[in-house]
Amino acid sequence: STARTESSSGKLYADFAIFKGKAALLITPVSPKFIGMASGRQMVDRKGIVLFKFIPAIGAHKYDSERKQYFALSATEVGCLISLGPVESCEFFHDPSMKKSSEGQIKKTLSISPFPDGGGYIFNLSVMDSLNKTNERFTLPVTKAEFSVMRTAFGFVLPHIMGWDRLMEPQHGDTEHGQPHGIA
Amino acid sequence: STARTESSSGKLYADFAIFKGKAALLITPVSPKFIGMASGRQMVDRKGIVLFKFIPAIGAHKYDSERKQYFALSATEVGCLISLGPVESCEFFHDPSMKKSSEGQIKKTLSISPFPDGGGYIFNLSVMDSLNKTNERFTLPVTKAEFSVMRTAFGFVLPHIMGWDRLMEPQHGDTEHGQPHGIA
Amino acid sequence: STARTESSSGKLYADFAIFKGKAALLITPVSPKFIGMASGRQMVDRKGIVLFKFIPAIGAHKYDSERKQYFALSATEVGCLISLGPVESCEFFHDPSMKKSSEGQIKKTLSISPFPDGGGYIFNLSVMDSLNKTNERFTLPVTKAEFSVMRTAFGFVLPHIMGWDRLMEPQHGDTEHGQPHGIA
Amino acid sequence: STARTESSSGKLYADFAIFKGKAALLITPVSPKFIGMASGRQMVDRKGIVLFKFIPAIGAHKYDSERKQYFALSATEVGCLISLGPVESCEFFHDPSMKKSSEGQIKKTLSISPFPDGGGYIFNLSVMDSLNKTNERFTLPVTKAEFSVMRTAFGFVLPHIMGWDRLMEPQHGDTEHGQPHGIA
Repeated sequence: STARTESSSGKLYADFAIFKGKAALLITPVSPKFIGMASGRQMVDRKGIVLFKFIPAIGAHKYDSERKQYFALSATEVGCLISLGPVESCEFFHDPSMKKSSEGQIKKTLSISPFPDGGGYIFNLSVMDSLNKTNERFTLPVTKAEFSVMRTAFGFVLPHIMGWDRLMEPQHGDTEHGQPHGIA
Repeated sequence: STARTESSSGKLYADFAIFKGKAALLITPVSPKFIGMASGRQMVDRKGIVLFKFIPAIGAHKYDSERKQYFALSATEVGCLISLGPVESCEFFHDPSMKKSSEGQIKKTLSISPFPDGGGYIFNLSVMDSLNKTNERFTLPVTKAEFSVMRTAFGFVLPHIMGWDRLMEPQHGDTEHGQPHGIA
Repeated sequence: STARTESSSGKLYADFAIFKGKAALLITPVSPKFIGMASGRQMVDRKGIVLFKFIPAIGAHKYDSERKQYFALSATEVGCLISLGPVESCEFFHDPSMKKSSEGQIKKTLSISPFPDGGGYIFNLSVMDSLNKTNERFTLPVTKAEFSVMRTAFGFVLPHIMGWDRLMEPQHGDTEHGQPHGIA
Repeated sequence: STARTESSSGKLYADFAIFKGKAALLITPVSPKFIGMASGRQMVDRKGIVLFKFIPAIGAHKYDSERKQYFALSATEVGCLISLGPVESCEFFHDPSMKKSSEGQIKKTLSISPFPDGGGYIFNLSVMDSLNKTNERFTLPVTKAEFSVMRTAFGFVLPHIMGWDRLMEPQHGDTEHGQPHGIA
């Protein structure tokens, strides 16, 4: 039916949103994109990620979405986050212009540090632009309950952003899988 | 076939039920409801929840479903519950009339506290109605095994009540996802 | 196609099998069975279980399947098993004739106890038949690796044997779910 | 549509790849293969596995895929790996020619040992060929974050390589499951 078609083609929004005093954090997983080769093979063209969007507050319950900043976590960075012990911290460095002429101009740093009392984590995003001499900072306290949602939901999406849910679909499992004979 | 159509359209019931001496607790997850925008976007119209229904006992193995009380846990409250350590407790406060003229009249409190011996949790629901001067209380001991069922089943439903299972379906993953170019 | 129809209708076997010196244990999950009511409601008619089948050894790598004994774990018993700490044990008592005239004649007991060195568990099944004066016993050591398979696979099937995977299917989530208005 | 058909029939590739100084490790899960019996039963014909492919480095960021070696983990070996404590290690021995005339000629050993500082694991694969007098060794340090990805992704695939996802599909759950009557 038409409704069904629209449902399938329409873009779906379901952020996990955390609104705090100085900033908001909106999180959404993004599936990998596969590309078909002439051989019939399907390869990962773009890897899946978990996308963090930070938005600064400009007043009580008001956020300036024009000044949003993104940070895209890879599968291994997601693995790091979900295995964090209660007193452990982690830090990720990204360069949005890697392998381009502007490489090194912008430095993004996401750090996740435990509260002193062990009841949650502080998320810090810093975006330094050496050309424009700007440095934007976002600080967001994440409670233990909110972090538990992330840990569980990220554990759910991890196999999906790796494309392993697709590998486990019946049509792939039942066909030949190119595994060498006599393998052990 | 007709059977299949009825199966798809018929409402399905599959509570996780705990019957104890003073009360029964019936738990069911509820998916989010999406709404389609003119732009073709699908937004979350009503968030998913885990719905607790408490029913008081009025005798041996008899419960008075007329006097049931509901408590709807959000994703973050579910995250709190499933990350509870063996000696930790949590408490949630709800106002069913929030942002209405009767705001503050009814106060619902769900508290979850560990047994002194670490072998489970006590679930307490209190529903205070300041206008009608009533205060209903439900107390239900939950064994470690029953809590383990909750923890596992809630961990399963959490991505679903957030709508993230829908985000990970192939048709959404394979299409453009509006991610800015050069993101990192 | 015909192949597809056969694939859907054919009964599928995929036991998790553990063969040891004195006995074998074959484990398979069984989905709940739903029944449609005249109202259009679908109720759980028979609950899902995790089915244990014990078979005694009658020689090296030989097992006598004529003398097999079953033990069906409920959702809560599965919850108990998967939350076992390394030095904890649990025990389940079943009466296959409960609520029948022969109630109490046969007593089945499944006990799971940790190895003294913490490296796994001993599974013991005892089936006592007071009328026929028989008492069959099965003893099976389960390694930490085998128990880890159980814990992970049982955690996967638990929401399914509860019927919660069906509750989370899009067609149920998107329709009205009978949740009272103004719930909190 | 044609696209859909190709998508279903095309072989999909989505390795989890770890590239290190001396070797690379590519991991992919492989579903079990079912076979239909004349009776209509579907049995597991070939068990599912998690396939490790080791490739030696021959320079900076260069790997010699001609000298790759495979190691196929069974469900129980996966169970062992995902339940490893921070200071525990495990070791698996495989003979690719088991039950053939060349049995014993080649010995494969995969060992997983913790870093002294607890921050990850060393993966070692040794392939000894006694006839050709060769012994190939691969050593790969795996960080805590990478191991967390393995643990989570392997936990996801474990029920699939056991075929239990197929057992839990509605069409199997709703039909008769051959469970003896009066079982407990």
